Amino acid sequence: MPDRPLLEQLIDSLRCLPGVGPKSAQRMALHVLQRDRAGGARLAAVLAEAVRSIGNCRLCRTLSEDDVCGLCANPTRDDSLLCVVENPADVIALEQATGFRGRYFVLGGRLSPLDGVGPAQLGIDQLERRLEELRPAELILATTTTVEGETTAHYLGVLAARHSI
Amino acid sequence: MPDRPLLEQLIDSLRCLPGVGPKSAQRMALHVLQRDRAGGARLAAVLAEAVRSIGNCRLCRTLSEDDVCGLCANPTRDDSLLCVVENPADVIALEQATGFRGRYFVLGGRLSPLDGVGPAQLGIDQLERRLEELRPAELILATTTTVEGETTAHYLGVLAARHSI
Repeated sequence: MPDRPLLEQLIDSLRCLPGVGPKSAQRMALHVLQRDRAGGARLAAVLAEAVRSIGNCRLCRTLSEDDVCGLCANPTRDDSLLCVVENPADVIALEQATGFRGRYFVLGGRLSPLDGVGPAQLGIDQLERRLEELRPAELILATTTTVEGETTAHYLGVLAARHSI
Repeated sequence: MPDRPLLEQLIDSLRCLPGVGPKSAQRMALHVLQRDRAGGARLAAVLAEAVRSIGNCRLCRTLSEDDVCGLCANPTRDDSLLCVVENPADVIALEQATGFRGRYFVLGGRLSPLDGVGPAQLGIDQLERRLEELRPAELILATTTTVEGETTAHYLGVLAARHSI
């Protein structure tokens, strides 16, 4: 769409953000252009870099631009506790709200065969490797209290028993 | 801040958008990275380009990446009507909600001597040149109904009389 005014394109593009409708998108675009160009330029640069280079941590699968994320690389964390969560957002919430000092593993979803989400999609093989490496004394299952979340927790419980946790 | 994780930097940067607090910023960052990288990449590119190249239209002062904006360049608009508004947002609102087919002039604010906003800041000299060029039959004063808005409208009314409108 090379002929559409750039302002219209900007308003459209902002709608990729969740919870941003046409009115908010317009307000955001005008605010940035009229009052905070430096902030807009910084957001553009950081967003481009984030989309390009953030992948998943090789060990815990959370979002990180490094091969191994900061939490996994931190030698002061307690290897004897492994907390399994559904999403990177859960890691952030637990880090902010609790004093948990152990390790994490991010499934990236929950078991839902009808949606095509099985053990492979949740990186269960990676989790098993991680259990072998860390040999945690305790596995904390912090999945949601939905049917799928509970099913996932049950599945992980059986898995943990197989690894004698 | 080269050492902070990119995800944290992204969450921070998103807060330059109006109405976006820490929670929304986190939700936006995770959504883009987990579900809409293409949208995020497009937003980054359009935003960078917008911040770099959008300036003010030479004729009406609205936001545009061109020297003369699409509305001013449109030969089918009615030169006999000139609508003076405070902000580019007003132009968008009037274009979307009314059948107005005339020309615009964007002040970029309203007279407020205490805040250092006088005729020079509102581009009154540009407006006078525009009045001479277009010689509109009618000047529509669409400023807000605040004290400053009314004062601005009064000032523009006197100006219009001087130009025999």
